[in-house]
Amino acid sequence: MTKILVLHGPNLNLLGKREPEIYGDVTIGDINKRLKALGNELGLEVFALQSNREGELIDALHEAGKTSMGVIFNPGGYTHTSVAIRDAVSAIDIPVVEVHISNILAREDFRHRSLIAPACAGVVSGFGWRSYTLALRALSEIIKTA
Amino acid sequence: MTKILVLHGPNLNLLGKREPEIYGDVTIGDINKRLKALGNELGLEVFALQSNREGELIDALHEAGKTSMGVIFNPGGYTHTSVAIRDAVSAIDIPVVEVHISNILAREDFRHRSLIAPACAGVVSGFGWRSYTLALRALSEIIKTA
Amino acid sequence: MTKILVLHGPNLNLLGKREPEIYGDVTIGDINKRLKALGNELGLEVFALQSNREGELIDALHEAGKTSMGVIFNPGGYTHTSVAIRDAVSAIDIPVVEVHISNILAREDFRHRSLIAPACAGVVSGFGWRSYTLALRALSEIIKTA
Amino acid sequence: MTKILVLHGPNLNLLGKREPEIYGDVTIGDINKRLKALGNELGLEVFALQSNREGELIDALHEAGKTSMGVIFNPGGYTHTSVAIRDAVSAIDIPVVEVHISNILAREDFRHRSLIAPACAGVVSGFGWRSYTLALRALSEIIKTA
Amino acid sequence: MTKILVLHGPNLNLLGKREPEIYGDVTIGDINKRLKALGNELGLEVFALQSNREGELIDALHEAGKTSMGVIFNPGGYTHTSVAIRDAVSAIDIPVVEVHISNILAREDFRHRSLIAPACAGVVSGFGWRSYTLALRALSEIIKTA
Amino acid sequence: MTKILVLHGPNLNLLGKREPEIYGDVTIGDINKRLKALGNELGLEVFALQSNREGELIDALHEAGKTSMGVIFNPGGYTHTSVAIRDAVSAIDIPVVEVHISNILAREDFRHRSLIAPACAGVVSGFGWRSYTLALRALSEIIKTA
Amino acid sequence: MTKILVLHGPNLNLLGKREPEIYGDVTIGDINKRLKALGNELGLEVFALQSNREGELIDALHEAGKTSMGVIFNPGGYTHTSVAIRDAVSAIDIPVVEVHISNILAREDFRHRSLIAPACAGVVSGFGWRSYTLALRALSEIIKTA
Amino acid sequence: MTKILVLHGPNLNLLGKREPEIYGDVTIGDINKRLKALGNELGLEVFALQSNREGELIDALHEAGKTSMGVIFNPGGYTHTSVAIRDAVSAIDIPVVEVHISNILAREDFRHRSLIAPACAGVVSGFGWRSYTLALRALSEIIKTA
Amino acid sequence: MTKILVLHGPNLNLLGKREPEIYGDVTIGDINKRLKALGNELGLEVFALQSNREGELIDALHEAGKTSMGVIFNPGGYTHTSVAIRDAVSAIDIPVVEVHISNILAREDFRHRSLIAPACAGVVSGFGWRSYTLALRALSEIIKTA
Amino acid sequence: MTKILVLHGPNLNLLGKREPEIYGDVTIGDINKRLKALGNELGLEVFALQSNREGELIDALHEAGKTSMGVIFNPGGYTHTSVAIRDAVSAIDIPVVEVHISNILAREDFRHRSLIAPACAGVVSGFGWRSYTLALRALSEIIKTA
Amino acid sequence: MTKILVLHGPNLNLLGKREPEIYGDVTIGDINKRLKALGNELGLEVFALQSNREGELIDALHEAGKTSMGVIFNPGGYTHTSVAIRDAVSAIDIPVVEVHISNILAREDFRHRSLIAPACAGVVSGFGWRSYTLALRALSEIIKTA
Amino acid sequence: MTKILVLHGPNLNLLGKREPEIYGDVTIGDINKRLKALGNELGLEVFALQSNREGELIDALHEAGKTSMGVIFNPGGYTHTSVAIRDAVSAIDIPVVEVHISNILAREDFRHRSLIAPACAGVVSGFGWRSYTLALRALSEIIKTA
Repeated sequence: MTKILVLHGPNLNLLGKREPEIYGDVTIGDINKRLKALGNELGLEVFALQSNREGELIDALHEAGKTSMGVIFNPGGYTHTSVAIRDAVSAIDIPVVEVHISNILAREDFRHRSLIAPACAGVVSGFGWRSYTLALRALSEIIKTA
Repeated sequence: MTKILVLHGPNLNLLGKREPEIYGDVTIGDINKRLKALGNELGLEVFALQSNREGELIDALHEAGKTSMGVIFNPGGYTHTSVAIRDAVSAIDIPVVEVHISNILAREDFRHRSLIAPACAGVVSGFGWRSYTLALRALSEIIKTA
Repeated sequence: MTKILVLHGPNLNLLGKREPEIYGDVTIGDINKRLKALGNELGLEVFALQSNREGELIDALHEAGKTSMGVIFNPGGYTHTSVAIRDAVSAIDIPVVEVHISNILAREDFRHRSLIAPACAGVVSGFGWRSYTLALRALSEIIKTA
Repeated sequence: MTKILVLHGPNLNLLGKREPEIYGDVTIGDINKRLKALGNELGLEVFALQSNREGELIDALHEAGKTSMGVIFNPGGYTHTSVAIRDAVSAIDIPVVEVHISNILAREDFRHRSLIAPACAGVVSGFGWRSYTLALRALSEIIKTA
Repeated sequence: MTKILVLHGPNLNLLGKREPEIYGDVTIGDINKRLKALGNELGLEVFALQSNREGELIDALHEAGKTSMGVIFNPGGYTHTSVAIRDAVSAIDIPVVEVHISNILAREDFRHRSLIAPACAGVVSGFGWRSYTLALRALSEIIKTA
Repeated sequence: MTKILVLHGPNLNLLGKREPEIYGDVTIGDINKRLKALGNELGLEVFALQSNREGELIDALHEAGKTSMGVIFNPGGYTHTSVAIRDAVSAIDIPVVEVHISNILAREDFRHRSLIAPACAGVVSGFGWRSYTLALRALSEIIKTA
Repeated sequence: MTKILVLHGPNLNLLGKREPEIYGDVTIGDINKRLKALGNELGLEVFALQSNREGELIDALHEAGKTSMGVIFNPGGYTHTSVAIRDAVSAIDIPVVEVHISNILAREDFRHRSLIAPACAGVVSGFGWRSYTLALRALSEIIKTA
Repeated sequence: MTKILVLHGPNLNLLGKREPEIYGDVTIGDINKRLKALGNELGLEVFALQSNREGELIDALHEAGKTSMGVIFNPGGYTHTSVAIRDAVSAIDIPVVEVHISNILAREDFRHRSLIAPACAGVVSGFGWRSYTLALRALSEIIKTA
Repeated sequence: MTKILVLHGPNLNLLGKREPEIYGDVTIGDINKRLKALGNELGLEVFALQSNREGELIDALHEAGKTSMGVIFNPGGYTHTSVAIRDAVSAIDIPVVEVHISNILAREDFRHRSLIAPACAGVVSGFGWRSYTLALRALSEIIKTA
Repeated sequence: MTKILVLHGPNLNLLGKREPEIYGDVTIGDINKRLKALGNELGLEVFALQSNREGELIDALHEAGKTSMGVIFNPGGYTHTSVAIRDAVSAIDIPVVEVHISNILAREDFRHRSLIAPACAGVVSGFGWRSYTLALRALSEIIKTA
Repeated sequence: MTKILVLHGPNLNLLGKREPEIYGDVTIGDINKRLKALGNELGLEVFALQSNREGELIDALHEAGKTSMGVIFNPGGYTHTSVAIRDAVSAIDIPVVEVHISNILAREDFRHRSLIAPACAGVVSGFGWRSYTLALRALSEIIKTA
Repeated sequence: MTKILVLHGPNLNLLGKREPEIYGDVTIGDINKRLKALGNELGLEVFALQSNREGELIDALHEAGKTSMGVIFNPGGYTHTSVAIRDAVSAIDIPVVEVHISNILAREDFRHRSLIAPACAGVVSGFGWRSYTLALRALSEIIKTA
């Protein structure tokens, strides 16, 4: 079993389609493709999922806990408010890496606290879509050396 | 395209059916009818949706961003806790007006902060069901002068 | 008696004369005219007053409590600091609607709290000068259905 | 009508299957069985539901408000963050008893506040799966003496 | 010189005229009369002043500092917000006794802090209009034993 | 040794004698009788003690640590302020169950924090005198399965 | 029954014996004598009690609730920390007047909050031993007009 | 137009007349004379105004905005509490320099925050009456290099 | 008079009898013996007292103020909550040294603040039972050089 | 110019030499070697520096601003306290990537805030020594696409 | 001895060389020259020092305490974080004037508190490089009138 | 190896030379001599170091970790602000005792928190230079019984 779940949280379905002057024109489709390609290189099978719904993200984490070796997770706006998602990350035995496209510490105050990060293996934030590829490299090494 | 979405958040499906001594006997069905009538008057086509689910409200905002000219939004209890909904409001290009039936500033402390209002065009609160009709008038003028 | 007081707080005398690129070129004179016109339409006699002085605003509220049927009130910078004005609003028996030209929840932190709103019938904020006309419509309906 | 809803919040579907050294090997299936048995003894018909989704929990509370005599509710991670669920508990006329398997006051700081408890009839926490059976006994007596 | 100033702050002009079920029907005119009578008994000449304006209260305190032997002061809503009035109380050499009709510590949180009390000789609160007569007795003794 | 201590904290001696419209007419004498009866049923010998004094409650906990198998404890007003009682609960090896007659989370802010609960086996609150009988059942099961 | 309890809290037994340059040389014996004399004048029988122990003060309040018409209470250091004493004051049906010799609002921050005052009829602070005689006058009038 | 307004806030009329051991015997009359003399030297016409009233200070700032090239402003106790004065400073186009006679950061906590400073060109505090002459030099250079 | 009081606060009677793996097997009897021996060496007569009751500790401090030259005081859980004990320490003229067996700054947050320390001559914490002997040496030198 | 500075903050000189059960036996020498090797692969010349001194770290950042194309920076304990280092990062024109070996968000509260991150291009934390190699890959891509 | 130390804190060595659009092109070399010239005029010998290191700044303050008559000090980022520098300013007997080029109260929240200012003679901030010359004038007068 | 490091933090080089009326005329040279003498008595070789620089103190702690058996450390103003020094204390395996000459809990609020104490074996504060000799005795016993 060498499956990796890439889990995109709320509003990331709009990535690259809106405000391209800020976020660039890379869509989550593009990101997923690059991750699948890099996964091939690293011997990992990458699956991707996006949902705007807190409960679906929890379900996906539970499912990944049974079928995957790790998760790359961008919790979007739930990063700062969801104890339930944090509990889901804690409840599964596989490593989860939190990613953010922007540097959340340089934005509004209410975005400075991550409720989820304490339950994660590590955090990568601020490098645009490259946060995802760095996270996949990190996850690959964590799995190999576990 | 002259569509307006009226989006009712959690627990508003119970409006008018419970605690009539507090909330009166106006249901969201009644409110929607009055808004459709006023919309006709103002040359706007009003569509209404209610959901108790954070993710469905985000989906509805995304959809409205593609098909409507504005949103009247009562986020209910999510007003005070949802960064994800705020991000959805920010992500769409059309004006969103936040409404509240009761005066949230005169209630419990945890209802005093609106995470969503900073992303909205304006706020109307405290006028009962009339908060909605005032909001539709406001939205109508914003759209005409944009 | 169908008198309505429109009460403008501190610095609003400068409205429309300064920083027109931000606030537009509508003055409080203009707003008062539109309110009087709309008042005629709604069967209400609109009187307007502006003062930069906390005590004068309190006196005006007391006076209105004896002679008017409602107040549209933009407390300006006193919104966030005046317990005395809040007490004056509470002390009179007529409905007071708080208005703000800008969306105060999207500005500096110290503007997020309204000490006065809990004593008001409702709040309209963020719609520019239209906040006033929306407030007059709201007040008109409150008075009719009281 | 003597129906009682047992409502399990997020991540409780994993109970007993993970970290058995901490949570024991009792699953929510086991808990539901014991509650049904105890319900028979007490003359109550027990129905159980689990969901990871905030909105589904709200829907279930609304539905119970129409068809049941009381609710035993473990809100999991939503305990600390959901104003919307609190409003749902307030909106229905039947008694709701909040339960927690662990003693939430002895855990992390962000788990010390329950937004939901103020709207509940009472709280039982810290007794493992027995929190549920104690809650059912409590609910039974509340209903009988109402 | 045996003059005593009784200084009534904002909204106290309405005392006894509004909400008699709460505040009774005693007006500040009545209070002033009783204070003058008690003053006669104690050998003190009582003068009274009411103002809703922060600056006028400061002026009155300055004036009293030159012409009176003490002040009985109900700062109303300015109690909690005015550093400028506190400085005025500190700047004059005569004793000032703070009074409140209601027990401010049993009301809203923002009424619990008195910025002015630390500069006063003492505080009497919660005894209705009798807070004033108790304060006059206290002031009388302070002056005699100074 | 099958002794259980029921420990009532400050002001509980007045229970049932005052404000019966709020607290009902059940006295601590009645509660103790019901607990003794239920204890007989469960094979436990119930002893009861009430004290308004922090130090006596500490002494009683110490003594129970030497002679009893568990404690049902209503710390009353000391719940929120006593580190010394918390330390006493931590220092003894037997399980202590905290009970409250009212739902303390639905009352004033300063009653929301329990300093003592983190040292207890569990908490039952909000069910009136039934909080005690539920607590005894809980304690009985904890002791049997220990 | 015209008994009044004067209740002195912790450390007040040292009054007048220590730090006379600060507190003067008036002892609680002297204060009690003056109160008894003034009581005679006002037709009230004054009894006095001092204790350093929180529980004894609660017991004394309970006892007074059965035998006296009012209490003059200086809670000393317990003013700021005792929820249990506050509950005792709330539990008895007779008026309690809180007194302080010094102006507690002009001292350290942790002395600014009174947990007990919200349950009292009124507060007198800062007038030295005269705080007590003012309080007795106040209590006398409250009882007469009740 | 080379007019400069020197605006003295509340209680500064007492400067030099009270507590000379603390504040020295320099009055605001003296300060104004020195500022006029230094103004002559620097080619500036200095006008001075003192008011204890928040609204009059706002009016004076508005007026200066129309007739002067800069303001030297000691807001006294309003420094820490007035959003309305801050808005007035922001609303006028001329530079305002905030001055304080004492070092407000070395005094009570509630004097540490200046609501007004963020809207000013700069701040000079702690140099006694010389804070004013330093401020005039600063203002002179700002005007010349604007 | 060369008497020294060693005052042990709440729960210290259990020292050495419980949780020896944490606290060791040194009892307060042992500590008292070592202090008496060291006292002999230093020419001081050591008396010891333990109480779980706040009021008894206050009484003991008062008594020591009349009969002893200094106090070694471990206030246990009252360290963080008792203003009344702090006032007692302030009220007596002899030096009091606060001791703690464990390093309270390395424990839970609510143990970080000592209300009593500001009134003490010094603090020794974290050295196990040796905190007491170090404190006695310190007290001995303070008394000799006073 | 293709130089990259790797800057190690306080205490990192001890890495791998102490507490190997926690931090492993990788030293900063080892990390630097791996970074130089990876740098060769990516066409970057890696230089490394360690200092325990805040000022030396500032000097090194200034120097790098003149001679390098980017910085990988582990600020250690200064992460949470140094405004001066943040200003240095802001003052130089080259990208700085903040790295942490451990997941600082899962540690003590005072480690949750990074003063420096808002001035950085991005953050990588929690992956052990791999945080550094991930950061070098990120920096390499930032430089290539700049 | 008429020496004055001008002490520039961290990052000020970069002044005028970077971000000239913000800070202008005045370097600390230029500032030092102007200060020396103005010093000549005022009869003061000006020496200047810059360091990025907290300890070197402390050493320089100590040295100045022995050889100079006053200090003009821009503590840069240490303004908000260094208790050690504050203690150094307090420890020396000569007047220290704090200067800031920008108006720190109009910048980020963490720049609003100056730990050092309470130990200084006065503060000048917000006038660009002129803050320094104003400070030298102030220092000159303080020294002359001392 | 029986070496003990005595480490004096910032500003302690001025001890005894300045403000002798407060700190006495004992210098750190005197303290070091007394510590060396007491060390001889206890069989310990005492070395002393003073630095105003955070990084040098960290270096000294690292060095002591390799060559000494314990450290007596007065961190001065860094006590309250340095996470980096705390990490250095944690990183070395030898016991560190924190000392303060004054009772820091009786001084300004910002001196009440010690970031460093949680990593220390114990704390001695408030006994003047004797805090050091008490600390050496404590350290001696810790080392002997380790």
